[in-house]
Amino acid sequence: MPWLQRSITLRARPRGFHLITDEVEAELSELERFGVGVAHVFIQHTSASLTLNENASPEVRGDFERFMREAVPDGAPYFRHTLEGPDDMPAHIKASLMGSSVTIPVRDGRLALGTWQGLYLCEHRDSGGPRRLVVTVWGEHDD
Amino acid sequence: MPWLQRSITLRARPRGFHLITDEVEAELSELERFGVGVAHVFIQHTSASLTLNENASPEVRGDFERFMREAVPDGAPYFRHTLEGPDDMPAHIKASLMGSSVTIPVRDGRLALGTWQGLYLCEHRDSGGPRRLVVTVWGEHDD
Amino acid sequence: MPWLQRSITLRARPRGFHLITDEVEAELSELERFGVGVAHVFIQHTSASLTLNENASPEVRGDFERFMREAVPDGAPYFRHTLEGPDDMPAHIKASLMGSSVTIPVRDGRLALGTWQGLYLCEHRDSGGPRRLVVTVWGEHDD
Repeated sequence: MPWLQRSITLRARPRGFHLITDEVEAELSELERFGVGVAHVFIQHTSASLTLNENASPEVRGDFERFMREAVPDGAPYFRHTLEGPDDMPAHIKASLMGSSVTIPVRDGRLALGTWQGLYLCEHRDSGGPRRLVVTVWGEHDD
Repeated sequence: MPWLQRSITLRARPRGFHLITDEVEAELSELERFGVGVAHVFIQHTSASLTLNENASPEVRGDFERFMREAVPDGAPYFRHTLEGPDDMPAHIKASLMGSSVTIPVRDGRLALGTWQGLYLCEHRDSGGPRRLVVTVWGEHDD
Repeated sequence: MPWLQRSITLRARPRGFHLITDEVEAELSELERFGVGVAHVFIQHTSASLTLNENASPEVRGDFERFMREAVPDGAPYFRHTLEGPDDMPAHIKASLMGSSVTIPVRDGRLALGTWQGLYLCEHRDSGGPRRLVVTVWGEHDD
């Protein structure tokens, strides 16, 4: 069975939710050979995360950040892991709420995303730096 | 390696959490041939989601909806993506909190769910309409 | 394609977030033969969950528990599924927020985790008892 596994380094981005579908797909030109399969996108960090959501309006991504700041407040009084700054512990929690990977079906050589679905990098630190992904695709090639 | 990939359209359901295990399994009769494998259930939308949870009490599913309405309130004052109605932006956030797919081991021709686990469609819109799933199963057939 | 599928029973742990990476890896000695692949760790319960997060500071895991108690309060007045105790319904909700499985790339015979990533058992019940995992690994062996 054919396998494709690739590391991708994303440039540093500001805290917030960032659409990265095109950037990841650009690294996966062999995807077009897969008639059926699955793609797994994984982030090797604990203060940034991945999710699928609306790929059109920047306001949606802004509202994600506004909601998450309310839901997991910087510097909440009950946090004890505070040495790395007020945004550190909230970043860990947000990372687990969103998740460290997304798994997407592959069909006819493409990610079988819905019309409005895009891949988000969720950067939960104020200065998270570059982020490493590992993308793995497995399936069957068209012949 | 055998693959099974199928699109399933779920009928429109009201906002809330709905048990759909039987409906999805009914579309996967070939599952019984897989001695070992994995099943991936994916929703092609950004305002509905999938999760595994308790398959018995309807009150649990009602409490999920009651909790989510508290946690991500309709019409929160900091939302800017409001053109599509007060339930739209919360639906996007809930979809990412719950997740767009579940991945379940397959063993001896069946989903290896725990006794109390069932598959939920989480409908976060008031009128979300029909929802499309893509189910992918890969593994080894028993011989 | 080689497959590895194994059930693991975790001993009962107190409510909270517990690092179990070493315990799970110890059950997967054959992992070293996989040059490329994917590992899926699944929990067969609806009141405990799995996530990847920071593998160093116990304070991080304590803060996860403190946050989750705030976010999904025991005995919230709008819960109706209360027969099994004030920690039961919150446990179900937390389980879905964290998720029932993690999926990790395998590379060169090892889980391709980031430096700081570890696997957490998230025990959401006061007395959850032992917990069953199903670990599935698929991929290609090195030759």
